[in-house]
Amino acid sequence: MTMPAQAVEIVEVGPRDGFQSVGPFIPTPTKIAIVESLYASGVRRMETTSFVSTSALPQLADAPDIVAASARLEGLDSQVLVPTARHAQRALEAGARHLSAVLSVSERHNMGNVRRTPMESAADYAQMVAAMPADCTMRLNIATAFDCPHVGRTEQDAVLALLEPLVAATADVEIALCDTTGRADPAQVRALFGAVRTCFPQVRGWAFHGHDTYGLGAANVLAAWDAGVRVFDAAAAGLGGCPFAPGATGNVATEDLVWMFDHMGVETGIDMDRLIDAALKVAALPGAQIGGRVRDAIGARRCLAIAS
Amino acid sequence: MTMPAQAVEIVEVGPRDGFQSVGPFIPTPTKIAIVESLYASGVRRMETTSFVSTSALPQLADAPDIVAASARLEGLDSQVLVPTARHAQRALEAGARHLSAVLSVSERHNMGNVRRTPMESAADYAQMVAAMPADCTMRLNIATAFDCPHVGRTEQDAVLALLEPLVAATADVEIALCDTTGRADPAQVRALFGAVRTCFPQVRGWAFHGHDTYGLGAANVLAAWDAGVRVFDAAAAGLGGCPFAPGATGNVATEDLVWMFDHMGVETGIDMDRLIDAALKVAALPGAQIGGRVRDAIGARRCLAIAS
Repeated sequence: MTMPAQAVEIVEVGPRDGFQSVGPFIPTPTKIAIVESLYASGVRRMETTSFVSTSALPQLADAPDIVAASARLEGLDSQVLVPTARHAQRALEAGARHLSAVLSVSERHNMGNVRRTPMESAADYAQMVAAMPADCTMRLNIATAFDCPHVGRTEQDAVLALLEPLVAATADVEIALCDTTGRADPAQVRALFGAVRTCFPQVRGWAFHGHDTYGLGAANVLAAWDAGVRVFDAAAAGLGGCPFAPGATGNVATEDLVWMFDHMGVETGIDMDRLIDAALKVAALPGAQIGGRVRDAIGARRCLAIAS
Repeated sequence: MTMPAQAVEIVEVGPRDGFQSVGPFIPTPTKIAIVESLYASGVRRMETTSFVSTSALPQLADAPDIVAASARLEGLDSQVLVPTARHAQRALEAGARHLSAVLSVSERHNMGNVRRTPMESAADYAQMVAAMPADCTMRLNIATAFDCPHVGRTEQDAVLALLEPLVAATADVEIALCDTTGRADPAQVRALFGAVRTCFPQVRGWAFHGHDTYGLGAANVLAAWDAGVRVFDAAAAGLGGCPFAPGATGNVATEDLVWMFDHMGVETGIDMDRLIDAALKVAALPGAQIGGRVRDAIGARRCLAIAS
């Protein structure tokens, strides 16, 4: 008797969450080559870009080109981040079929992002859901679900209160709880996912979006896994950070998560060798702030294998 | 009603496992200053040095001086690593009162370290235990308990078989299972600690010694914590690595573990600010290969606080 296979879905968010943190403009063909390289490693779900104000985020001004290029990769679920209903409309017009909405539990953080209170963003989200074409799917990202860069730790009740109207707008979504600052801890991650799954059993699925800023990227993913979460965001080479905060780092590195799940006997569908190739392309981007451990560790073993 | 306090004991092993990986000789007063700085942060248990062949490991040739300096720090439990009964005798003569024996599950790894089979080392260990003065304590480290650099993953049965004669020699020890390569995964860590605690309930205590080479340092500690382990080895600044393997890294960083447990509401007795001061001293050592995330993340916040 063989053990029942366990599987996990890793959502590669480097082309959105990672690229947006890189200062020098990454030429569109380079972006597409990285998306293709990640796809070649077996990644079948990717946050490929974002429709946002191009003056605020010129790095992602080529979003329509990325949407078009991603659509050519067969079987790739390409999701695009949209902070408001207006940007969602632009994304749909460009051909996007999987939108990724985002709003923040923290009022100050949400005001900083879109100059709206979280409840105003919730109303905007309801509008976005109502206007969704039938052939489109939605993911909802709850930023600062664990901690806010401005006001510190997020109360669990605040997350539950914000989720009420959002789930009322539609439960037919995947909801990602995002550790925006990387300051969540495993006990908090387990507790929050336990609470939301109990309070909102009607939601289609839950995902965890974590950062590795304080070294707990993999530990928090493990905690979410223990709490039943099976969808995880990650960025190849741990790309991310913030030009204004030298110690800030990106999402947990995709290769670190694949390494962990591979060794736990959990299927990811991603080939490590090819993923390392993609991650090395990411790491070579001018201005990239990178993280993760497995890329270097495996790179060292490759060098030793060549030498001996 | 307040929650019952949970506590964990962190064993700082940087002055042994970290220093031994540094190429240039660290002057003895610098070593002592780092031990004192770690002590000032609240560390009360430390692997301060090792008695080994000084020709094989000249970095630790000043072990007697370190033992003497550590003995002056009130309340510090200073343990010293000894690979054989002969070196244990030297350590006792220098005044050490807490020995840390080590042997490897992997025959090839053990042969490489001490030119003995694991069972020959087990017999040597029994001799060491029999010769222990009454006022001394022992910790037993099982290297390659999860994975061997030469032969890959370690079978659980091999660990249990080696533990049989060791526990028969004395159960009045703490036994650390060591992830020598950093290639253990959380599922394996939980399973092995579950097995040894079931098979050997008479053992005084269990500890986990993990490396962060593949980014799973904190996740594996979390897994061991879940399995009931309450003693963890760590090295300030994640000092470690190997001059011959560019991607190899050291023990999980003490500051990352303290960060995790602090946020989980688990008492460590260590002050983070002072620990960062000590970790920065470690990171500044010429030739140091360092790791960990929290030091940089907190350093960046310190800079921002000064700037704003």
